[in-house]
Amino acid sequence: MASILLLNGPNLNLLGKREPGHYGNMTLADIEARLTALADQQQQTLHCYQHNSEGALVDRIHQALTEQVDFILINPGAYTHTSIALRDALLGVAIPFIEIHLSNVHRREPFRHHSYLSDIAEGVILGLGTMGYELALYAAIQKLNKHDRALTYDGRS
Amino acid sequence: MASILLLNGPNLNLLGKREPGHYGNMTLADIEARLTALADQQQQTLHCYQHNSEGALVDRIHQALTEQVDFILINPGAYTHTSIALRDALLGVAIPFIEIHLSNVHRREPFRHHSYLSDIAEGVILGLGTMGYELALYAAIQKLNKHDRALTYDGRS
Amino acid sequence: MASILLLNGPNLNLLGKREPGHYGNMTLADIEARLTALADQQQQTLHCYQHNSEGALVDRIHQALTEQVDFILINPGAYTHTSIALRDALLGVAIPFIEIHLSNVHRREPFRHHSYLSDIAEGVILGLGTMGYELALYAAIQKLNKHDRALTYDGRS
Amino acid sequence: MASILLLNGPNLNLLGKREPGHYGNMTLADIEARLTALADQQQQTLHCYQHNSEGALVDRIHQALTEQVDFILINPGAYTHTSIALRDALLGVAIPFIEIHLSNVHRREPFRHHSYLSDIAEGVILGLGTMGYELALYAAIQKLNKHDRALTYDGRS
Amino acid sequence: MASILLLNGPNLNLLGKREPGHYGNMTLADIEARLTALADQQQQTLHCYQHNSEGALVDRIHQALTEQVDFILINPGAYTHTSIALRDALLGVAIPFIEIHLSNVHRREPFRHHSYLSDIAEGVILGLGTMGYELALYAAIQKLNKHDRALTYDGRS
Amino acid sequence: MASILLLNGPNLNLLGKREPGHYGNMTLADIEARLTALADQQQQTLHCYQHNSEGALVDRIHQALTEQVDFILINPGAYTHTSIALRDALLGVAIPFIEIHLSNVHRREPFRHHSYLSDIAEGVILGLGTMGYELALYAAIQKLNKHDRALTYDGRS
Amino acid sequence: MASILLLNGPNLNLLGKREPGHYGNMTLADIEARLTALADQQQQTLHCYQHNSEGALVDRIHQALTEQVDFILINPGAYTHTSIALRDALLGVAIPFIEIHLSNVHRREPFRHHSYLSDIAEGVILGLGTMGYELALYAAIQKLNKHDRALTYDGRS
Amino acid sequence: MASILLLNGPNLNLLGKREPGHYGNMTLADIEARLTALADQQQQTLHCYQHNSEGALVDRIHQALTEQVDFILINPGAYTHTSIALRDALLGVAIPFIEIHLSNVHRREPFRHHSYLSDIAEGVILGLGTMGYELALYAAIQKLNKHDRALTYDGRS
Amino acid sequence: MASILLLNGPNLNLLGKREPGHYGNMTLADIEARLTALADQQQQTLHCYQHNSEGALVDRIHQALTEQVDFILINPGAYTHTSIALRDALLGVAIPFIEIHLSNVHRREPFRHHSYLSDIAEGVILGLGTMGYELALYAAIQKLNKHDRALTYDGRS
Amino acid sequence: MASILLLNGPNLNLLGKREPGHYGNMTLADIEARLTALADQQQQTLHCYQHNSEGALVDRIHQALTEQVDFILINPGAYTHTSIALRDALLGVAIPFIEIHLSNVHRREPFRHHSYLSDIAEGVILGLGTMGYELALYAAIQKLNKHDRALTYDGRS
Amino acid sequence: MASILLLNGPNLNLLGKREPGHYGNMTLADIEARLTALADQQQQTLHCYQHNSEGALVDRIHQALTEQVDFILINPGAYTHTSIALRDALLGVAIPFIEIHLSNVHRREPFRHHSYLSDIAEGVILGLGTMGYELALYAAIQKLNKHDRALTYDGRS
Amino acid sequence: MASILLLNGPNLNLLGKREPGHYGNMTLADIEARLTALADQQQQTLHCYQHNSEGALVDRIHQALTEQVDFILINPGAYTHTSIALRDALLGVAIPFIEIHLSNVHRREPFRHHSYLSDIAEGVILGLGTMGYELALYAAIQKLNKHDRALTYDGRS
Repeated sequence: MASILLLNGPNLNLLGKREPGHYGNMTLADIEARLTALADQQQQTLHCYQHNSEGALVDRIHQALTEQVDFILINPGAYTHTSIALRDALLGVAIPFIEIHLSNVHRREPFRHHSYLSDIAEGVILGLGTMGYELALYAAIQKLNKHDRALTYDGRS
Repeated sequence: MASILLLNGPNLNLLGKREPGHYGNMTLADIEARLTALADQQQQTLHCYQHNSEGALVDRIHQALTEQVDFILINPGAYTHTSIALRDALLGVAIPFIEIHLSNVHRREPFRHHSYLSDIAEGVILGLGTMGYELALYAAIQKLNKHDRALTYDGRS
Repeated sequence: MASILLLNGPNLNLLGKREPGHYGNMTLADIEARLTALADQQQQTLHCYQHNSEGALVDRIHQALTEQVDFILINPGAYTHTSIALRDALLGVAIPFIEIHLSNVHRREPFRHHSYLSDIAEGVILGLGTMGYELALYAAIQKLNKHDRALTYDGRS
Repeated sequence: MASILLLNGPNLNLLGKREPGHYGNMTLADIEARLTALADQQQQTLHCYQHNSEGALVDRIHQALTEQVDFILINPGAYTHTSIALRDALLGVAIPFIEIHLSNVHRREPFRHHSYLSDIAEGVILGLGTMGYELALYAAIQKLNKHDRALTYDGRS
Repeated sequence: MASILLLNGPNLNLLGKREPGHYGNMTLADIEARLTALADQQQQTLHCYQHNSEGALVDRIHQALTEQVDFILINPGAYTHTSIALRDALLGVAIPFIEIHLSNVHRREPFRHHSYLSDIAEGVILGLGTMGYELALYAAIQKLNKHDRALTYDGRS
Repeated sequence: MASILLLNGPNLNLLGKREPGHYGNMTLADIEARLTALADQQQQTLHCYQHNSEGALVDRIHQALTEQVDFILINPGAYTHTSIALRDALLGVAIPFIEIHLSNVHRREPFRHHSYLSDIAEGVILGLGTMGYELALYAAIQKLNKHDRALTYDGRS
Repeated sequence: MASILLLNGPNLNLLGKREPGHYGNMTLADIEARLTALADQQQQTLHCYQHNSEGALVDRIHQALTEQVDFILINPGAYTHTSIALRDALLGVAIPFIEIHLSNVHRREPFRHHSYLSDIAEGVILGLGTMGYELALYAAIQKLNKHDRALTYDGRS
Repeated sequence: MASILLLNGPNLNLLGKREPGHYGNMTLADIEARLTALADQQQQTLHCYQHNSEGALVDRIHQALTEQVDFILINPGAYTHTSIALRDALLGVAIPFIEIHLSNVHRREPFRHHSYLSDIAEGVILGLGTMGYELALYAAIQKLNKHDRALTYDGRS
Repeated sequence: MASILLLNGPNLNLLGKREPGHYGNMTLADIEARLTALADQQQQTLHCYQHNSEGALVDRIHQALTEQVDFILINPGAYTHTSIALRDALLGVAIPFIEIHLSNVHRREPFRHHSYLSDIAEGVILGLGTMGYELALYAAIQKLNKHDRALTYDGRS
Repeated sequence: MASILLLNGPNLNLLGKREPGHYGNMTLADIEARLTALADQQQQTLHCYQHNSEGALVDRIHQALTEQVDFILINPGAYTHTSIALRDALLGVAIPFIEIHLSNVHRREPFRHHSYLSDIAEGVILGLGTMGYELALYAAIQKLNKHDRALTYDGRS
Repeated sequence: MASILLLNGPNLNLLGKREPGHYGNMTLADIEARLTALADQQQQTLHCYQHNSEGALVDRIHQALTEQVDFILINPGAYTHTSIALRDALLGVAIPFIEIHLSNVHRREPFRHHSYLSDIAEGVILGLGTMGYELALYAAIQKLNKHDRALTYDGRS
Repeated sequence: MASILLLNGPNLNLLGKREPGHYGNMTLADIEARLTALADQQQQTLHCYQHNSEGALVDRIHQALTEQVDFILINPGAYTHTSIALRDALLGVAIPFIEIHLSNVHRREPFRHHSYLSDIAEGVILGLGTMGYELALYAAIQKLNKHDRALTYDGRS
């Protein structure tokens, strides 16, 4: 049974309350509930954490080292584009992670096109809204299980 | 029952035969088989096409307009970074699409960091190997079904 | 009766104690007192807040949404040039704001010439020292009152 | 009793007749009338001048040296971004000035983000519409009077 | 019966007298005569104006607003590359216009490759010598008449 | 009797079926018919060719050398911005050509502002929709006839 | 006995017919004949292929993998500067290659100074005209034979 | 007896636990112990502080003003490259400081080559591992004592 | 007897009245008097002209063509860096000229380091104050006389 | 009988002693011996010179003018990327030359991608190790003999 | 007993005689004497060398290979920013070195911010005046002795 | 009686023998003779020195400090664009100097447009051929004599 950490960066606590054109109507609590249910169903432990402070996120990543977290799912929000400290924290703990963005950052301001995390991530999923979190969790579980069989998709049955 | 087109660009016919460090051991035929099975299971039609020529890919996208394809999954390979013609074809037919990259393009040469397609894609999935195709197919089906329920993941049961 | 929030970013707690050539001798407490008096005189509520942490400023902006603040006056200090998180917070709460700088940032280092906030601000006032805060408060009250008459200036009588 | 010069650059004679989305409905004559009234009330002399030619504006600034103008308020319009001659004229006469822009130039084309005047101005006020002129006049009078007391705002009483 | 304004910028009064390698032997008077004849034949009024001063050209464009000019043909000469004031004048009067260059500016110095007018023009014709003016006049008349039939070309009969 | 080749690049076969905001409702067949009629009327031969492949367009330009084509009219579509091979083909056959764009490329994405062909073209016509083709054909015929008389415009009679 | 593939990219079929100032008078057939003779003399097999299409060149490189080609000599023409697909094909088959240019690309337009292939080539020979092909063939044979003796030059005897 | 502050930025609490290739095996506690011993031996007071939050580091620098710290030794970690707030704090308190980096930042990613602190530091020591802290402490003590004699090195006796 | 034109651009009428640190105390009238005397002594005619308007300077250059001026000495002031129209005027009349700057423009703001005139000038003299005009006049006379003997300097005898 | 000069720049005296991964095991003396033998065999005179000083290399090139050297082979080492003086020397003596690099400079640091010599060279050979010198000598002899026959390769017989 | 080489580049022979604001009053001879004494005390041999010529410095580095120098301390002066030849020499001999700058190069002209040596150095010490040499010598000795104990500082006892 | 040093950099010993289109037919010896005669006539001492090595030029500038040279005239040749060492030497000796270029460097390659010396020179004279040296000598003498009278030009009498 693996341990997975879901990290959300600044302003993501506003999800569902702001800019629905970019981010949809689901709140962060809704997302965390969905992912927790999905993880439970797969006998995985999911920790959820959101903070608006860069330092607090760095601290939480360090703590993951102590907790022996196996995989991190992170939506770094605005810190994607400005935080080398987050990059260093993830390099430091050496826990594999997937980077998630709700919106398609490439449609937005040019300063959102660069990420300090992407080149050290296992992968990146962007533009697919809250579904992106679910796909990332799938991918993480598959990664932990070596992905030796095709996925069986039960979303519509 | 929706119709989905899986497009692969130049050199992806070499998959499983070249640079396993970047791309793994599965062949393109293996991937197409997996995705076809998954689509079948969901009562979706999947068309598969790979070509090394930019013009042939443009032609195939135009044909999708006639065939009333509902969604495109595309790994444009090297044309990601050089082909405005592919961008124009996708803009022209106005079929929603997800962009997929097997490798993490952000770890590679700087000229692979820019895509002519990302800002007009529904979303982008990169770095997750052949699993990226499967996730993209999930996402496409969910998108076509409006994504109103959480995914149920049956990959490991 | 409207509610206005005055936000000051990092190092502005040093005002009056540091670099008088750039910033003058008045302390932040002096400025807050002046503006509070002016707001009182106009039957407006003024909230004042300063913090050196980016995350705390983001939190305070979120709180403004709950408090139904009508207008924000912000001197983001050094975060002007580095914080996309502040930008996102202000975009998220969608409260109109004016950006203020005590010094003329265009006379200083090149990295101070760009602001992540200016293009989403109602307006910008810079280089006019502590008077800039007073002018911004005037402008905010006028904005809230639609600016349908010329200002009557009583500063020197 | 001080002498203040209000300068407006190219196309500002169209104010109130063009692009109301950017510039509002007030004409330049309206603005000049409002500011003259405000100056009168403060026992200051206000000269107003608008021209579409760079050379004529340079000439007018030189003339201000002869007239012993104490302060200049200038909205340089498009010459903000292209005229080093205006910069040199203002450097040459060494009269302090405030730069004003009606619209928020940072929301517009990138070539409007740079000003040849800002780094030599006393201050800059932008994006606050015609109110920006009134605030600049306040600031000028305060500057000339050394700004030793808080402003008393009588706009809404 | 529509009213069309032909504007020529700095140094175009030298046409036929300077740099024939770039500009040919026809004088500006010759061109204006040809275009006037062509406009007459089509029952259109053509006004012609050339000036070496940026400000005078801005003034002339403003005047066009009063005269209810329907379309402008403009060869802005060197101001193409340096004048935001001309751009603002054309934006301000909101009269559709075609930009014309006698020479192929893309063969010349790099600073001639950028135009401050092209992105707000109806269209651009360049490199076709004095014929470019005639084609632009055709296009203007067609635009005013909605271009619902193919042109009938009678140039060589 | 001269021979003229009309070349259209990738995605122009979609004309009239896609993005009418950019390109209007006329199909490529309509345009080719109009131009053929106009060429016939002037006793010129017009060849028409469209292809989505860069290599096929290069081949067709080479073939023009054998066919002794006197002039080329080319709308290179997306290859305008990416194909040095087309440039080399046109340099290689040394047939004069005019570059045409339906839309005003300067209003669109920055990568559409540069053309690999413009500096070697006789001229460029852009932004004037399908009328641009007709004007280019006029210009070509005039060029072949040395343009020694003013055009006689018969479009509206 | 080794197998060597000589690849020529777009427009090189025009050799001897175009731009002799850049490329000389020898045709591609002449070059291929000379190199075949030289290869024969050394008991090496030489395959020759030229195509104007990027996709066809990619296909031919893939085929070389099946044919067990030992070395590739490639003059990629214009694709040197624009084709990441060719780069990927050469990376994919992992056959060593030398890049050849007839002309001195550094004397020409700036966009010809960068190659997508040079950094993955064994070596580059440029500016030496058709002789460059012969030298490259020498070098390839030497490379295959480990270059353990000085060359014996018999060119002028 | 002087007071010296040793500041360490984000992720330096991981020292000895992460990336030994870049940073070695000594922990931050080891370093602080060594430097405290060395300072004691020289009758200097050393304060040690590490934090992952930019705001907390700014606060600590402000506190140094109150404590009358004479010199600061700072390894700003990732904030070196992103924090103008730290720069402003150091400018604000006007306490001389030396910047230290354990690794040779010039061997790493390009974004680590620029520091917002170097040009306002007394000096910079980089690439010399944990020894860099010791050398910086020497230098600080020498600076405070005006460096009027050569150092006597007793490291190996 | 040759005819020489001395042209001075914007703000040079302020000479001797402004920024003596950059430009010294001599007025423009002083300089024109000195140069006229020197020209008289050499039996040359000197015309002097200063204007603050770009268009007026262009007009004056055109007039020089009619007057058969043999050489131009020009200090273009701020238009050095912004006026392509002046460049075109000088190219158009094809009269040789020397560019003069009183101050050392390379010590000043970066935007003063580029000149639109230098590459088409006979020569450039800068940083030598008002003496630069005298040297330029020498050089012009020498140029007109083919410079076949060494100068005889009589300045200090 | 022609005279050829082989020039080697800084650090090439270390060949065979340093960085074998980049440069192989042969010493400069070995290379010079091989080339001398090859030149002898062809009845050509070869002069060899290596120096670490830019000025000494410039002197040696000047001397070649006196010696009536017909062709230069030059590996400029690090001066390739930094010496305009060498460029000027080669331009000054106007002796044709081939530029040689042992390693593939395009695989190395970006500052090695630009050469101050390539655009004035007859040709460039790079990445082919010590064989590059031999090929360059072949090419030089062929150039001097006009290259009218195919090379006869006798290297392996 | 190790052998250490102290290298000083161009203009450092002027130390103590020039620009004391940047470099202090100590001469190079003073520095060399101090360092020699310090090395003697540690039973290390120190060689000192200064030259103004790039080539001579390259030669001296090569000689260090023969002399079996164990460590180099180098202040490359202006060659820091321009000499790839020095970089290559240091790479070639593969002797570890520390780069020293007396002044804080980051406070000076932008072209002094880049070093061709830093990324291949063991470490860099800058801005600490002549003390920087002493610290570098400490560091070198410690490096040679593996730095297994804390330094014992005896500078002030 | 003042002492003046004339310095010429690399390749200027070729003057009169190379590229007469750029540099004319006079040799360096001719120029030195002319300037010596002119200096003699003015009772000034002129030292002349030319060298191709950067280090030798630096040495010669240092020597000027000992010789109490009052002014330097320098044509740094190619080192203009590459030598920070020369800049440092001139800064170090603090002797005023004028920079001279025979050709108009702004008409030549872009890398010749930047000088490492111009911003620290008294002035710059360029493009005026060998006459530039004579004018610079005039200017130097005038500078040394404070330029309090107009020059008397006796060149043509």
